[in-house]
Amino acid sequence: MRFLLINGPNLNLLGQREPSLYGAETLEVIEADLKEMALKEGIQLDCFQSNFEGALIDRIHAGIGGVDGILINAGAFTHTSIALRDALLSADIPYVELHLSNTSARESFRHQSFLADRAVGIVTGFGAMSYQLAFQGLLAHLRKKR
Amino acid sequence: MRFLLINGPNLNLLGQREPSLYGAETLEVIEADLKEMALKEGIQLDCFQSNFEGALIDRIHAGIGGVDGILINAGAFTHTSIALRDALLSADIPYVELHLSNTSARESFRHQSFLADRAVGIVTGFGAMSYQLAFQGLLAHLRKKR
Amino acid sequence: MRFLLINGPNLNLLGQREPSLYGAETLEVIEADLKEMALKEGIQLDCFQSNFEGALIDRIHAGIGGVDGILINAGAFTHTSIALRDALLSADIPYVELHLSNTSARESFRHQSFLADRAVGIVTGFGAMSYQLAFQGLLAHLRKKR
Amino acid sequence: MRFLLINGPNLNLLGQREPSLYGAETLEVIEADLKEMALKEGIQLDCFQSNFEGALIDRIHAGIGGVDGILINAGAFTHTSIALRDALLSADIPYVELHLSNTSARESFRHQSFLADRAVGIVTGFGAMSYQLAFQGLLAHLRKKR
Amino acid sequence: MRFLLINGPNLNLLGQREPSLYGAETLEVIEADLKEMALKEGIQLDCFQSNFEGALIDRIHAGIGGVDGILINAGAFTHTSIALRDALLSADIPYVELHLSNTSARESFRHQSFLADRAVGIVTGFGAMSYQLAFQGLLAHLRKKR
Amino acid sequence: MRFLLINGPNLNLLGQREPSLYGAETLEVIEADLKEMALKEGIQLDCFQSNFEGALIDRIHAGIGGVDGILINAGAFTHTSIALRDALLSADIPYVELHLSNTSARESFRHQSFLADRAVGIVTGFGAMSYQLAFQGLLAHLRKKR
Amino acid sequence: MRFLLINGPNLNLLGQREPSLYGAETLEVIEADLKEMALKEGIQLDCFQSNFEGALIDRIHAGIGGVDGILINAGAFTHTSIALRDALLSADIPYVELHLSNTSARESFRHQSFLADRAVGIVTGFGAMSYQLAFQGLLAHLRKKR
Amino acid sequence: MRFLLINGPNLNLLGQREPSLYGAETLEVIEADLKEMALKEGIQLDCFQSNFEGALIDRIHAGIGGVDGILINAGAFTHTSIALRDALLSADIPYVELHLSNTSARESFRHQSFLADRAVGIVTGFGAMSYQLAFQGLLAHLRKKR
Amino acid sequence: MRFLLINGPNLNLLGQREPSLYGAETLEVIEADLKEMALKEGIQLDCFQSNFEGALIDRIHAGIGGVDGILINAGAFTHTSIALRDALLSADIPYVELHLSNTSARESFRHQSFLADRAVGIVTGFGAMSYQLAFQGLLAHLRKKR
Amino acid sequence: MRFLLINGPNLNLLGQREPSLYGAETLEVIEADLKEMALKEGIQLDCFQSNFEGALIDRIHAGIGGVDGILINAGAFTHTSIALRDALLSADIPYVELHLSNTSARESFRHQSFLADRAVGIVTGFGAMSYQLAFQGLLAHLRKKR
Amino acid sequence: MRFLLINGPNLNLLGQREPSLYGAETLEVIEADLKEMALKEGIQLDCFQSNFEGALIDRIHAGIGGVDGILINAGAFTHTSIALRDALLSADIPYVELHLSNTSARESFRHQSFLADRAVGIVTGFGAMSYQLAFQGLLAHLRKKR
Amino acid sequence: MRFLLINGPNLNLLGQREPSLYGAETLEVIEADLKEMALKEGIQLDCFQSNFEGALIDRIHAGIGGVDGILINAGAFTHTSIALRDALLSADIPYVELHLSNTSARESFRHQSFLADRAVGIVTGFGAMSYQLAFQGLLAHLRKKR
Repeated sequence: MRFLLINGPNLNLLGQREPSLYGAETLEVIEADLKEMALKEGIQLDCFQSNFEGALIDRIHAGIGGVDGILINAGAFTHTSIALRDALLSADIPYVELHLSNTSARESFRHQSFLADRAVGIVTGFGAMSYQLAFQGLLAHLRKKR
Repeated sequence: MRFLLINGPNLNLLGQREPSLYGAETLEVIEADLKEMALKEGIQLDCFQSNFEGALIDRIHAGIGGVDGILINAGAFTHTSIALRDALLSADIPYVELHLSNTSARESFRHQSFLADRAVGIVTGFGAMSYQLAFQGLLAHLRKKR
Repeated sequence: MRFLLINGPNLNLLGQREPSLYGAETLEVIEADLKEMALKEGIQLDCFQSNFEGALIDRIHAGIGGVDGILINAGAFTHTSIALRDALLSADIPYVELHLSNTSARESFRHQSFLADRAVGIVTGFGAMSYQLAFQGLLAHLRKKR
Repeated sequence: MRFLLINGPNLNLLGQREPSLYGAETLEVIEADLKEMALKEGIQLDCFQSNFEGALIDRIHAGIGGVDGILINAGAFTHTSIALRDALLSADIPYVELHLSNTSARESFRHQSFLADRAVGIVTGFGAMSYQLAFQGLLAHLRKKR
Repeated sequence: MRFLLINGPNLNLLGQREPSLYGAETLEVIEADLKEMALKEGIQLDCFQSNFEGALIDRIHAGIGGVDGILINAGAFTHTSIALRDALLSADIPYVELHLSNTSARESFRHQSFLADRAVGIVTGFGAMSYQLAFQGLLAHLRKKR
Repeated sequence: MRFLLINGPNLNLLGQREPSLYGAETLEVIEADLKEMALKEGIQLDCFQSNFEGALIDRIHAGIGGVDGILINAGAFTHTSIALRDALLSADIPYVELHLSNTSARESFRHQSFLADRAVGIVTGFGAMSYQLAFQGLLAHLRKKR
Repeated sequence: MRFLLINGPNLNLLGQREPSLYGAETLEVIEADLKEMALKEGIQLDCFQSNFEGALIDRIHAGIGGVDGILINAGAFTHTSIALRDALLSADIPYVELHLSNTSARESFRHQSFLADRAVGIVTGFGAMSYQLAFQGLLAHLRKKR
Repeated sequence: MRFLLINGPNLNLLGQREPSLYGAETLEVIEADLKEMALKEGIQLDCFQSNFEGALIDRIHAGIGGVDGILINAGAFTHTSIALRDALLSADIPYVELHLSNTSARESFRHQSFLADRAVGIVTGFGAMSYQLAFQGLLAHLRKKR
Repeated sequence: MRFLLINGPNLNLLGQREPSLYGAETLEVIEADLKEMALKEGIQLDCFQSNFEGALIDRIHAGIGGVDGILINAGAFTHTSIALRDALLSADIPYVELHLSNTSARESFRHQSFLADRAVGIVTGFGAMSYQLAFQGLLAHLRKKR
Repeated sequence: MRFLLINGPNLNLLGQREPSLYGAETLEVIEADLKEMALKEGIQLDCFQSNFEGALIDRIHAGIGGVDGILINAGAFTHTSIALRDALLSADIPYVELHLSNTSARESFRHQSFLADRAVGIVTGFGAMSYQLAFQGLLAHLRKKR
Repeated sequence: MRFLLINGPNLNLLGQREPSLYGAETLEVIEADLKEMALKEGIQLDCFQSNFEGALIDRIHAGIGGVDGILINAGAFTHTSIALRDALLSADIPYVELHLSNTSARESFRHQSFLADRAVGIVTGFGAMSYQLAFQGLLAHLRKKR
Repeated sequence: MRFLLINGPNLNLLGQREPSLYGAETLEVIEADLKEMALKEGIQLDCFQSNFEGALIDRIHAGIGGVDGILINAGAFTHTSIALRDALLSADIPYVELHLSNTSARESFRHQSFLADRAVGIVTGFGAMSYQLAFQGLLAHLRKKR
């Protein structure tokens, strides 16, 4: 199996950016840890981050046919991008939505997600650990479906 | 006369993507058919698709002075992009808004359009035929104005 | 095939009424033009206009079994008549909603339609040309379905 | 005692119209059954159906002085007609509101009723049986008041 | 000059209907009094009442070209009929909106009017006297414009 | 067949509580009358009342497998208890919602029901008679389904 | 009988202020005309204008016991002052609300009135004539009550 | 460390209830699996389920002082119980909110949670796997805090 | 006279729970102090606390006929329990609503009360002192009524 | 200690104004009673009433530095005056909000308060007794803080 | 040229009032600095502050004919006073709205302004510097218009 | 000190685009003028414009560590881009929001800003002058903080 990890805008700053809110680990470390975890499960994990909505869409399109599941932390695009939603639905690849912080505890405009209702599941609030939980949840979901 | 056809995010997937919803024709076929129809009317039709909002805006700007009318299927950006609206109004080129599916029959967040109130007219729900109807509507509108 | 063109309240005044908004053609001319266009396609077009909601409903009922498609410009009833919606759905005849003016550019109470979500498609804003585009859209839709 | 049964728009189609939603009995059968039930209770039942709001109002007015209770299935007018509400209140005749289908289970614009708050009671969702239950409820109400 | 007095649904019941709310005068008396008042000012007053929205629209259409001003108590249609609004605007005849009762003191759905924003002026709450005040207001408005 | 009658909070006070609003019959009398009516139809009727939401849920659960239909007057829980809704849906037993008073005529927070959209039908406003009408409606519904 | 005419903020500028909206007559002229009209009816009319909400309240209080009816054009306070409403209700003097312009045709924040629901009646949109109509309406109301 | 697993209303039916929505595992199995997982981590896990809001509150109170973390699937109470929120905040024990199904994909009244904004994190949509992910997330959170 | 003091969910934790918000006194102390104060006024005060909504309702029912006034701090049920409101209204015993903290200064979902509009009066924000003020207010109210 | 009692618009009419709603005591009596109660506690009480928002603000400003606590019945300004809120917060003097009537039981525009969220506490509905309870609550609050 | 600086309620307390929010400079200093700046540009600056809405309106009226531009910090009246808006529009003098603090960062009721949409421009958040920027903006605007 | 000037979508068209709304100066001229003004204050000003949201985010990220303050005219992104807000907050560089036109006077969707509540201050409506005022405001803010 092949998974794709998508990170949206500003997540390239992880570790530098408001550590009290997002934790001290950089995105590189998170990606490396997750790749390692994937490897143990026999899964190839591709990682992609961009601050361009269009680039994220292109990357999802590129995964059609070759990717079995998507982990996506769309950052601020979660709340504003219908185009990203459409990309995920068009690609027809099961995905898990995840967030580092607990978005329910933040500004009200972060309480709405254009991705949530079509996701396999959602994990929020566990910091870098959210990535690992999302990975396990997606994996369990796909294995059960087979 | 010169027309510009703008297609927004995910429309590059046409034909592959949810055919029950959007039809089986690819964007290439739609564009080719429309170019042929335009040719018969003595109109040059330029086509542009991108998943990047910024690229769509740049392309509209590039049309200023040289384009007489725009056909736009902005996809998901219809509902979220004020910048695209501003680009169309700044360019001051008459445009027709079109959609493949009947957006009124879909999720409530697709019922609002940032483009509609300043469009010449709107065509939704006829699948690939929407492009041809929009083309004819725009053409009739421009010929009447002369 | 047999089509029915339904025009709702105040559309009998076309040509007299606010020509800057609705154009200078009378309803008689529009109907005649459309009948001619229909004839060329081998379709019989019946036309009906009334300012009475009940009369429009009765006319739609009368079409059950004999009409293959409906073109409807319900005028103000678009925004207030659930009974008309029910008549169309009960009749179970595919219909296209059309408007002369761009309703999105007018008062907010004209932005809601009780007909739109169940229509084949919608055409708005092209003046008398809206009728012709709607006709073509409906025709293409029905031919494709066969 | 004399009762009046009012049926609003599209209910003339009963039996033909979406039987899965409204049942297979025609309005004629429903009216006949109800008249028979009324007869057994010594009540004269008059029946009236129209797709014209104005005709329904006129009929209610005509009942002033001679009608003891009204059973009304106002169909779509339930949700849009304040004039019908006013007619019922002006007539000052106790009425029961009824519906074949469960309106709470349908589109949100069917969740509001302009008649409900002044009705004796409301019966919804039992198909043709709704008429019989409404009749019994009205009868019991009027007998208790005496 | 020629004026038209339009009375909407249920106003035929005036005098009979909820006298504590609407007063004890019948519509015939009100019309007769107003005609007399008009006569003194050298104005011909035509009166029309119907419970059919379509009939009211037809009557307004019939006044185009021959009527200088309209007094309208649209009753419940005030709050629900965009078609009536369109008829008045299409006719392009100055009109005054009037009500017997103070609609602001009644149910919240009577607080909105589809006629008010385009009326010359509005008179509410004075019972039968509202007709006379509306008449004088319309007359003064038209005389000033000349 | 076996039916279950569920009465929610404060309904134990029936007969004592605001008789002008709810009538003078006690719950015991209502239950006895209904049991008698059921007996005549060959149906066993179990009755349960509690002021504890949890007890109502437990009782519904206990009915799984043995109960063919539920009559429920959930009182105030109608408007606040999603848990009760879930219990009914989990039990997968057809149910009829009923109320003594006309909830549409009372405070606005009583206009919403968490049970209504999944009920077979709804009966409100007929006082103790509501129970009998609901019983007949449920019975007719279940007999038709067989 | 004794009447009190209350004019609220900015009405001292009448005649100078936006004449296309409010007319060219000054408040002095309006007051003088109205006093003359009152005199003919044997009524003493006191006039008061202030830009201070507190002064308007004090003046209304001063009228308790000696004033039979109030004409009030509260200007902008109509939409913002609950204190003025309370003053009028405390004074327990019948009042008519009036406006020069048609407030329904202006900004949405002018569509709400804290005075309207308790007024005898309301007159809006007739310019200076609104004062005379309001006077007549109030007079007729008080004479009828005697 | 000692954890407490709280399950709210109707979750006792797991495995029997709508398996397509909630999965086929019973609560007993889920609890047993989770206890085993806890044991491996050296954690004692107590499990509690009730359909009574008050019983859930009492159980949380009982955990004060002795429980290090709470896993809570409050079911329908998630959306209606402020009292449960208060119990958790009063107890001042870190908790993770979890759901079997993806609540964002269900009725709109399930989109609001009274528990979410104060939770450590949230896991939804993974079926029985949600319990395990929530357990791991809570554990990681508590170990990091030490 | 006999008074009943009702305390709702989580108030058993008083003194232990968020003392900065609710103060350091336990419920036992508050009850004892209030009983003493009541004794001096010759009033018997019964106290009841429960985390079960149903138990609170049962206790209020039990007071019918024997209790002259109720002091109620319903805690979180204030904002969610229509059943509690119904219990109080059914019992027809004057009651005072009270809160330790200033609910207006807390989350927006605490700004609505299902009890407030029918209470004699409301006291909020004075900590344990709120009980004493509510007691005095209720006492004065009842003595004045005699 | 020195307290300031502020009474807002229309409260000068107390005793004369709607006694069924506000009681029969005049403001003079209320102030005298409260001064006496203050004296017994060794507190100097200053009283001020005005119908001018600006005068109330000036009086609050004048109290800066010399006043230890404020009792305020802002009347209608409670619901409309942000300026009064700002004056109280600028003065930085603890205040108690009070009302004679139960504002929750009145018009919906009286349910919002611009003062409540920053008050020490709130007392409503006890008539003249509200002043005494507010006084005691403020006193207890200030003594506890010392 | 002559400018008028208007300061609304509570701004007389500047320097004393919440310095962390509004800065430590008194209004006298701000006015003096601004007068000096005006002098350098050859502009006479008049300054006025009041806590009375009526006084601010009177002062604006007094400026008609003699004042070329207005700088206004209306404080809390910004969000509540339509009368002030009307005064500015009646005076027909260009004005700039300014605030010391960033109102977007404060309570939601401060996010609406009745003055903003008709202002030349708006400056918020720069403390005392806001006055100087507003002055320069107004000056540049008026010089460009000449 | 080093400042960064960010211009969002469509601002490259300045001078060409709707000059009546935005003025006749091109962005190049505005940038040059502002650089000159910065130079006089000893500040280096970098300028960046893009129609790509992602490019703006990247540019802000690039400024971390080297930029002391940001001037941002985000154009349409002001109202739709939470990602841009996050970029500014992540960069943790003080910024001033500015607009050429008065956004309060335009479409309602331009009244909300995702940047405003965290900005140092906001300047709108002064055309090209807005840039200079924003520059001065930012400069004064930063100098005061040192």
